[in-house]
Amino acid sequence: MVGGGKDAFIGAIHRIAANMDGLIELVCGALSINPEIAQASGKMLFLPEDRTYLTYEEMIRKESLLPEGERMDFVTIVTPNFAHFAPAMMALDHGFHVVIEKPIAFTLDEAKLLKAKLEETGLLLCLTHTYSGYPMVKQAKAMVRDGVFGKIRKVYVEYPQGWLSKLTEREGNAQAAWRTDPKRSGKSGCMGDIGTHAAHLAEYVTGLKISRICADLNVMVEGRALDDDGGVLLRFDNGATGVLFASQVAAGEENDIKIRVYGEKGGLTWTQQDPNTLLVRWSDQPAQIYRAGGNYGDRLSSLAVHNCRTPGGHPEGYLEAFGNIYRNFALTLSARLDGTEPTAEMLDYPQVDEGIRGMAFIDNVVKSSESEQKWTEHTI
Amino acid sequence: MVGGGKDAFIGAIHRIAANMDGLIELVCGALSINPEIAQASGKMLFLPEDRTYLTYEEMIRKESLLPEGERMDFVTIVTPNFAHFAPAMMALDHGFHVVIEKPIAFTLDEAKLLKAKLEETGLLLCLTHTYSGYPMVKQAKAMVRDGVFGKIRKVYVEYPQGWLSKLTEREGNAQAAWRTDPKRSGKSGCMGDIGTHAAHLAEYVTGLKISRICADLNVMVEGRALDDDGGVLLRFDNGATGVLFASQVAAGEENDIKIRVYGEKGGLTWTQQDPNTLLVRWSDQPAQIYRAGGNYGDRLSSLAVHNCRTPGGHPEGYLEAFGNIYRNFALTLSARLDGTEPTAEMLDYPQVDEGIRGMAFIDNVVKSSESEQKWTEHTI
Amino acid sequence: MVGGGKDAFIGAIHRIAANMDGLIELVCGALSINPEIAQASGKMLFLPEDRTYLTYEEMIRKESLLPEGERMDFVTIVTPNFAHFAPAMMALDHGFHVVIEKPIAFTLDEAKLLKAKLEETGLLLCLTHTYSGYPMVKQAKAMVRDGVFGKIRKVYVEYPQGWLSKLTEREGNAQAAWRTDPKRSGKSGCMGDIGTHAAHLAEYVTGLKISRICADLNVMVEGRALDDDGGVLLRFDNGATGVLFASQVAAGEENDIKIRVYGEKGGLTWTQQDPNTLLVRWSDQPAQIYRAGGNYGDRLSSLAVHNCRTPGGHPEGYLEAFGNIYRNFALTLSARLDGTEPTAEMLDYPQVDEGIRGMAFIDNVVKSSESEQKWTEHTI
Amino acid sequence: MVGGGKDAFIGAIHRIAANMDGLIELVCGALSINPEIAQASGKMLFLPEDRTYLTYEEMIRKESLLPEGERMDFVTIVTPNFAHFAPAMMALDHGFHVVIEKPIAFTLDEAKLLKAKLEETGLLLCLTHTYSGYPMVKQAKAMVRDGVFGKIRKVYVEYPQGWLSKLTEREGNAQAAWRTDPKRSGKSGCMGDIGTHAAHLAEYVTGLKISRICADLNVMVEGRALDDDGGVLLRFDNGATGVLFASQVAAGEENDIKIRVYGEKGGLTWTQQDPNTLLVRWSDQPAQIYRAGGNYGDRLSSLAVHNCRTPGGHPEGYLEAFGNIYRNFALTLSARLDGTEPTAEMLDYPQVDEGIRGMAFIDNVVKSSESEQKWTEHTI
Repeated sequence: MVGGGKDAFIGAIHRIAANMDGLIELVCGALSINPEIAQASGKMLFLPEDRTYLTYEEMIRKESLLPEGERMDFVTIVTPNFAHFAPAMMALDHGFHVVIEKPIAFTLDEAKLLKAKLEETGLLLCLTHTYSGYPMVKQAKAMVRDGVFGKIRKVYVEYPQGWLSKLTEREGNAQAAWRTDPKRSGKSGCMGDIGTHAAHLAEYVTGLKISRICADLNVMVEGRALDDDGGVLLRFDNGATGVLFASQVAAGEENDIKIRVYGEKGGLTWTQQDPNTLLVRWSDQPAQIYRAGGNYGDRLSSLAVHNCRTPGGHPEGYLEAFGNIYRNFALTLSARLDGTEPTAEMLDYPQVDEGIRGMAFIDNVVKSSESEQKWTEHTI
Repeated sequence: MVGGGKDAFIGAIHRIAANMDGLIELVCGALSINPEIAQASGKMLFLPEDRTYLTYEEMIRKESLLPEGERMDFVTIVTPNFAHFAPAMMALDHGFHVVIEKPIAFTLDEAKLLKAKLEETGLLLCLTHTYSGYPMVKQAKAMVRDGVFGKIRKVYVEYPQGWLSKLTEREGNAQAAWRTDPKRSGKSGCMGDIGTHAAHLAEYVTGLKISRICADLNVMVEGRALDDDGGVLLRFDNGATGVLFASQVAAGEENDIKIRVYGEKGGLTWTQQDPNTLLVRWSDQPAQIYRAGGNYGDRLSSLAVHNCRTPGGHPEGYLEAFGNIYRNFALTLSARLDGTEPTAEMLDYPQVDEGIRGMAFIDNVVKSSESEQKWTEHTI
Repeated sequence: MVGGGKDAFIGAIHRIAANMDGLIELVCGALSINPEIAQASGKMLFLPEDRTYLTYEEMIRKESLLPEGERMDFVTIVTPNFAHFAPAMMALDHGFHVVIEKPIAFTLDEAKLLKAKLEETGLLLCLTHTYSGYPMVKQAKAMVRDGVFGKIRKVYVEYPQGWLSKLTEREGNAQAAWRTDPKRSGKSGCMGDIGTHAAHLAEYVTGLKISRICADLNVMVEGRALDDDGGVLLRFDNGATGVLFASQVAAGEENDIKIRVYGEKGGLTWTQQDPNTLLVRWSDQPAQIYRAGGNYGDRLSSLAVHNCRTPGGHPEGYLEAFGNIYRNFALTLSARLDGTEPTAEMLDYPQVDEGIRGMAFIDNVVKSSESEQKWTEHTI
Repeated sequence: MVGGGKDAFIGAIHRIAANMDGLIELVCGALSINPEIAQASGKMLFLPEDRTYLTYEEMIRKESLLPEGERMDFVTIVTPNFAHFAPAMMALDHGFHVVIEKPIAFTLDEAKLLKAKLEETGLLLCLTHTYSGYPMVKQAKAMVRDGVFGKIRKVYVEYPQGWLSKLTEREGNAQAAWRTDPKRSGKSGCMGDIGTHAAHLAEYVTGLKISRICADLNVMVEGRALDDDGGVLLRFDNGATGVLFASQVAAGEENDIKIRVYGEKGGLTWTQQDPNTLLVRWSDQPAQIYRAGGNYGDRLSSLAVHNCRTPGGHPEGYLEAFGNIYRNFALTLSARLDGTEPTAEMLDYPQVDEGIRGMAFIDNVVKSSESEQKWTEHTI
């Protein structure tokens, strides 16, 4: 693991998610650029001292010298955005598969370089867009794919948070500090951090691509360097229309990502606040409540079933969704190591193409927001 | 009553709303342009035959000849949009107060003429924007007005319906037929019919004015003449930003108008599906559930309390919200007749200025949608 | 109307409910035993002075002398429980139909005398058990009756309120004062006031009869004269089992009556907090959300459809449910006056037999609570 | 681990829960009485062959011969109820701490013997009553303990499931087969399996003890050997009253354990379907929504905070609640190994006394159900 020292939020999440199913074990780490934190964190995590590295360069170099079977199998990168690319590229260069916290890189160009390297090496890359790891999001995808709603016409996707309602970045909150800093976070704050999750979710569930956007990014808290709020009108490649909005100044909101999709005959709603439920509406019959682990025979798609650990009524949450990404990545990797073919369910985790679309989304949304023209093409 | 014959949707609603509190009695009507329907409807409603008129002209003329105390006190107009202005103007000309179903008129110019006539005559006009009649919407307005959330930054308002997911207008549905017909409905379908409710709700709750818009109106069902869907990015006169969306092709949705407003310290959510609840969120304390009729002393504003008929836990709904508009109009009228001053709570019903803003919203949203420029000023 | 003066809670409710559909008009009243309140209330309600009576005896006597068509059609009795029987009996004796707020009388014997008188005179009696007036409660009844769930096995019905968490009756609350006074309320407080609603709802929805009970009534607030809380184990005449509980000391609860019924194949949940929804669960398929006014063709029973005033998504509430009882009573009465046969939907309002079962429930629940034996037969 | 072979439900849950926080590693197992399943399961779980045992006796004996630091630290027992006591006793006799799936034993006497052995050896025993592992259940406990609601008066606790609505035990469902078999499950089916969870939850949250019960257990599905449903009236040692019900024939229900507690000033509701929320009601102010991970300073008790892994809005669920029990047990054990004092938060996991109360609950509820007397003392 690169990054994710003692007090980092997302590093701890990655570790729980990776631990959960007994398929993955943390064997080494370059957990902080601060040597003291790196060592204390290694100790806290029961890492051997000689595999508690001070830099990712040292880790990758030394691990690559260990015998196969002993050295790490893949690298997880959980540093701030600006520090994704270099360790990822170095890991790939040394033959290690990679898991990266989103966004995949700092710039679209970096993302494209990673793709080229993956094609060259044949290695795997996994991008942890958590929300598509939820079983009922997968059920949503499967139902849309199977055409039960007819052609898709409308997509609403939203992601309100409230935690940046003040200038939290100046109050000693490390999370807020790097996320609102263009040098560490990138061109966009809110849209880069959470808008990309929303855009990914919309494309994942519908199987469509966003083709044009009209964006309005805003800095709502005076003194902040990056957008903390934004709304985007959407057009999709099949003619569907949509609205995406994300905010970090919706005071009092926690983390309520939600998607609604409507086709000719009905629609669906999924919200992270009630993640084990998929509400399915119909034009001419009562709405239905699909539940993770539900006892409906093949009405629950194999995509959903594969990603549940418990029977209906035993709520799974964010960590399990995160765990599903790790689990599918690990199963794909195991299949490869065993020389078998991973199933479609295993392969259903975000990869480099999703990473590239995310970087392009950031670029295009910033470009659109600065433009006086209504529409900007969402090209890559 | 003008319009509202036997099978009309909104006419029946108006009658229930007006009846509810025992303050208003239906005394005459020109209920349909079809004489047979007009007469059958009059009979169904226990109107005397000689006050069951065939045209609004006849009604207004004959009623104005009746002695005071016997003739009708005001006219309610519940015809399709194109037939609002003429009876309203004639009623005012004959000294009758007017209640009009929204939108106030067919064009912005007509609305302005009504305003001028009202100023000239001193008569009252009430516009039935139902949703601002709900007690918890009024509570929302009061809390924003009292500054409990600090300066308002964000407004999300949405109004998804699904009933026009097919070409219902060609299947003998009279409601759908006139609402999708530019000659009877006006320049805009969805935005005129329900987008105006959403815009009114946003301005009512926040006390702000929408100042700029970026609209994307769409015809999602092939063969339809007017927009059945749209999204609008908003700017408000205090610098707040927002998103408004409305759709009649969100298949499976009923009528779920919802508003969220966020300030510096917290925010609120109100949705018609659970109308007696106002969810209030805070940055630094647990969210609160304000309930209509709640037993909280003066935490429930006088605006809310005045508009509840029952103690907490006895759900009031759409008809009561509608009834509140009639009740407040009637109380204001009674006060005037009694020579007393109506209270602020009584005067809190939509009037001609809200009607003018609604017409301008329709104009500007259509103009913006047709423009390649991102922003259009929302001028009147 | 007998009782229901200016400040009475339930009198105002009755008037709104009766007004709502334009079928009923208040023409006279004996609104209070206090002459000043009676007169002021009559004035407030626009009653003519000569039909604002000071006693129900005077009202019934004088009205019965008026010519047919002019005199009142029926009497509504909204006094405290101890004063239901006498005016009801006198009204029937003078040929007037009767509407009574529940419970029907002060004792079971009185209720039986009313039944005998009704059989003798052929007049109508309507008992306002509000909750069975909700359209989705009627849908529940229809679905159980149609056997969609198979044989019914389980019934849970509950009615938590919190308003008597203190000795409110000693703080000048008139409502609390008479409802906790054995001389005005009867043998039981909580179970008589709201437990009877719950028992009625259970029998109404399931079409079953409670056959045995095991009750535990309690006085939870020291100094109170009647039970303010209770739990009852139930057996039904088809072998189903159940639990009923009601409380007036569930501090913070409003008025959340709720019923759950389960059969061999699925079950249903209805709660007054979300009254337009009926949640239907199945053993082997996703749960369904039935909505009042839903667009499902004949999946919504005629019982439900007949009792909706608006399309789906326009919430109706407590007053409309109450209004349905009045409306069905009025339609039944009109049919009788017109010499036509009322439909099954019209006749679906609570009548004297429900009143008798309610009085027996009070008797038996008190008897059971005082017994050391587990089970008490619920006989009449 | 004893039991928990490949296809067992609860064994897999225990492993995920134990893995989650990186504090516990599965090192050996006697995973099935079927040698083939035992070996296949060991392989699946990456256990070394020489620590994949065929019987618990072999496991405990051989592990106890391994050097300290190498041998297992504790034994987890996840077999059916009848096979809890013997391995637990043998483990304690060989100096191993024990984690047991509930109920702690097959009879109350066995439970008492375990307690005596624990007192003799000073070893630890952890009982996995999952539901008290949820952070918002802990918040509930803390708020009641701190007296914010005043004296507790009412407790409603319920646990409806529907999975035994048919004779599932005869359709090849292994779970159903042993749970409905008196020889493997014990005296009671539904009340033993899930009623004990409900009773534990009620005592955990309130800090009170159930002192008297009046139970009605039923076999609702013909041909079943044990109760599949029941209702119980409760009295608590402080005078509070309550109702407990549990069912496995509430067709369509998943696993919706829920508790409501009311005191003099307000009350709380927690339900597993929305486990990160604690709804807190007040007599005289708006209800509040406490959320796991909420940003409220010290309004979230240390008990709740200690048991959250993520910030508010990242839903944690059943596995995390289960994980909390393991984590607290592991932290307590670590503290002991380190010679430090475990904190009150660490010690807050169910232990032998809760196990004894659970066995007594089963005994007394069966006794009460068979009695014609209303009340049975809940003695141990």
